[in-house]
Amino acid sequence: MKRIAILGSTGSIGTQTLDVISHYPDLFAVEGLAGGYNLSLLAEQVNQFKPKKVSVATKSLADELKLMVPSSTRVYYGEEGLLEVAAGTDADYMVSALVGSQGLRPTLAAIEAGKDIGLANKETLVTAGHIVREQVKRRGVKLLPIDSEHSAIFQCLNGESMKNVHKITLTASGGSFRDRTREDLQHVTVEQALQHPNWSMGAKITIDSATMVNKGLEVIEAHWLFQLAYSQIEVLIHPESIIHSLVEFADNSIIAQLGNPDMRVPIQYALTYPERLKTPTASLNLAQIGKLHFREMDYERFPCLKMAFESGLAGGTATTVFNAANEAAVERFLKGEIKFLQIEDIISDALDKHVLVSNPDLEQIMEADAWARVAAKRIN
Amino acid sequence: MKRIAILGSTGSIGTQTLDVISHYPDLFAVEGLAGGYNLSLLAEQVNQFKPKKVSVATKSLADELKLMVPSSTRVYYGEEGLLEVAAGTDADYMVSALVGSQGLRPTLAAIEAGKDIGLANKETLVTAGHIVREQVKRRGVKLLPIDSEHSAIFQCLNGESMKNVHKITLTASGGSFRDRTREDLQHVTVEQALQHPNWSMGAKITIDSATMVNKGLEVIEAHWLFQLAYSQIEVLIHPESIIHSLVEFADNSIIAQLGNPDMRVPIQYALTYPERLKTPTASLNLAQIGKLHFREMDYERFPCLKMAFESGLAGGTATTVFNAANEAAVERFLKGEIKFLQIEDIISDALDKHVLVSNPDLEQIMEADAWARVAAKRIN
Repeated sequence: MKRIAILGSTGSIGTQTLDVISHYPDLFAVEGLAGGYNLSLLAEQVNQFKPKKVSVATKSLADELKLMVPSSTRVYYGEEGLLEVAAGTDADYMVSALVGSQGLRPTLAAIEAGKDIGLANKETLVTAGHIVREQVKRRGVKLLPIDSEHSAIFQCLNGESMKNVHKITLTASGGSFRDRTREDLQHVTVEQALQHPNWSMGAKITIDSATMVNKGLEVIEAHWLFQLAYSQIEVLIHPESIIHSLVEFADNSIIAQLGNPDMRVPIQYALTYPERLKTPTASLNLAQIGKLHFREMDYERFPCLKMAFESGLAGGTATTVFNAANEAAVERFLKGEIKFLQIEDIISDALDKHVLVSNPDLEQIMEADAWARVAAKRIN
Repeated sequence: MKRIAILGSTGSIGTQTLDVISHYPDLFAVEGLAGGYNLSLLAEQVNQFKPKKVSVATKSLADELKLMVPSSTRVYYGEEGLLEVAAGTDADYMVSALVGSQGLRPTLAAIEAGKDIGLANKETLVTAGHIVREQVKRRGVKLLPIDSEHSAIFQCLNGESMKNVHKITLTASGGSFRDRTREDLQHVTVEQALQHPNWSMGAKITIDSATMVNKGLEVIEAHWLFQLAYSQIEVLIHPESIIHSLVEFADNSIIAQLGNPDMRVPIQYALTYPERLKTPTASLNLAQIGKLHFREMDYERFPCLKMAFESGLAGGTATTVFNAANEAAVERFLKGEIKFLQIEDIISDALDKHVLVSNPDLEQIMEADAWARVAAKRIN
C-alpha cells in the first residue's frame, strides 16, 4: 500500500489524482490533502479519503473546515499547512500539484523528508532545478513526472540509456489561439483564451498554453528532469495532442508515447511506476482519428517560448524571473487589467531589467521571484 | 568484437547488414557469408569482409567462386553449405536473412550451436515457431527481430513487463496496390506489383506486401516472438510507414517506434542491442512530413491477411501451408503463370484441402511444406 499526500488536491491534477486513487483502494491510502479556497470540495475529499492532515489557504477557512470534517483529521492552513501536509505525514509519496512557485518549498520539504515525488508543479524545477536535483540525489528519492509530455518522455526512456539519447521533442497543441495571427491576438478576451482545444486544465495553465509559456516551462523542466542540454530539446506543433512527446536516440530511432488526452494516464503511471494498471480512460483508435498533423514551431509567433529557451540558457535566476513575471502577468490578464499580448511584454521587460544571479540559493531565488512580481505590476 | 555469420548476404537485408557492419569495423567481424546465385556480388563481399567460410547455391557456382576469392576462404554450396555458414564458424551471432522456408534448418542449427540470432527470415517462426521457441529457451540464446515492425515492437517493450501488454498493432503501408479496388486487381502486372511505395525490398516480399501476405506472416511471427495471443495482435493501415508499430499497455498508454523507412536502423539495433549507435540514416522530420494517416485494415479487401490469422489460430501445420502455398504461388506469379488474384485462391485452396497436424515435428513440417507446394502448382 502506497501512502499519498497531495498538494493542490482541489485543482485539476489533484482531483484527477484522487479519481485514480479511488479506483485502487487496496493500493493507495491518502495521508494528507492540501487545497486552497474550495472548501466544499476539500471537505468532500476529506470525508471520502479520510486523510490524517488537511490544509487550506487561511485561518478562517481552516476554522470553517474543522466543522465540516471528522475530528480525526487535523486541519492546518497557509504555508505552514502546506509544509505539514507535504512533509509531516506518514506518506511515502507526495503529489506536488500546486499551481505556481508556491509549490517549491513544500516540495523541497517532502524530498528532505525522504518522500518520492510525483511532480505536476513544473515551477519547482523551473525556479530551483539545480537545488531540487541535488537534494533528490542526496536523499535518494524518486522524482516522477506527471505532466503528460514529461511522462511521455519518461516512458519512452524505459530500459534505455541516457547516453544514447540524441534529442527529445515536446509536442505542443498550439493552445487556444494556435490558428490566429499575432494581429488577431491584439484583442482576444479572457474567455477566448480559456478555451483549450484538447486538454481540460486549470485557468493559469490554459493561458500559459495560449502564450506558449507553458511549453517554455516544460522545456526548462525537461532540462532538469532528464539532464539534457537545451540544444537537445525541441518543440513541435501537433494540434491533436495524441503523440505526447518523442525521444530520438543515437541511431535515429524514435520512441514516442501516444494516447487520448487524459491526464489520468500519466498521473496513474507516476503513482504505479514501473507497473502499469488499467485506467478508466478510452483506448486510442488511430484509424478513427485518421490523421495526425505536425508543423514547425514558429518562435516569432510565440516569442514567450523563445524567451524560455533564452532564460534557460542564461541559467541562474533568469528562469525564476521568466516564471514569476509570467505568473503575475497572467493574474493581471485574468483580472482584465492587461491585454493578452502584454503578457509577453511584461516577461520580456522583467528579463531585460533583471540582474542575474548565477547558481542562486533558495533565498536568492525567492528574492528574484518577488522582484519579478513587483516589476510585472508596474507595466501598463 | 561481435563475430557475425550472414545467411542471405547478397539479398536486400544481407547487403544492408554488411553496410551496417562496414561502418563499425572495430565492433564486428564477418565469419561466414551465404549467398545464392549472385556470384560477382558475393565475391566482392568476400574480398571486402574476408569471412572464413562462404556458401553458394550449387557446386558449379562454388567451383567458379573459388577462383574469385582468397584461398583463406573455404567455399561450400547447397543446404550443406548453409548449415556450414550458419553453425560451423566461430561466429557468436547469425543473421538469418534467407528468403522463404529454406531458412528454417540452418537457423535451428545456429541456435543449437549456441549462436544469438538476428531474425529477418520470418518463415522460420511461421513454420516452426513452437520448435524454435523451445530451442531458443533450452540453448539460452537471444532471438532478435530484424523486421522493421518486430524491431519496433521489441524497442517499444524495452524496460516493460509483458504482463502489462494489452495489445500490439503492426502498421501496414498497404503495399503497391493499396489504393486499388479488388476489381482493379484482376489484371495488374508483375511490374506494377513490384513498385512498393515506401520500402526498397526483394521481389518476393514486395509481392507479399501487395497481397498483405507479408503482414500475415508478420502477425504469425509476432505471435511467436512476443508470445502473444492472436487476439492481442492488430493491423493498422498507415500509408507513410513512419510509425513502424505500436504497443498498447494495460493503462491505455501506447508506445510507438518511428523513423524514416530504412532497414539499417532495425538491422543495426539487432546487432548492437541493447546499445544504440549512430546510423548513416536520415533523422525523421515530422514537421516536414506534415501528416500521418491511418485507416482500418479491410479484411475483405485483403483476404490473405484474414487467412493468416485463421491459420495462426488453427495452429499446427496450417501456418506452414499458408506460407508454402504462398511461396509457390508468388513464384508462379513472378513467372507470369498465374494472375495476381490467383495467389490468394491458391493459398485458400491449399488451406482448405490440407489435413492439419497439431504440434508437428520438423519432419511433419517439411512434409506439409512440400505438400502445399505441390498443391499450389496444380491450380491454374
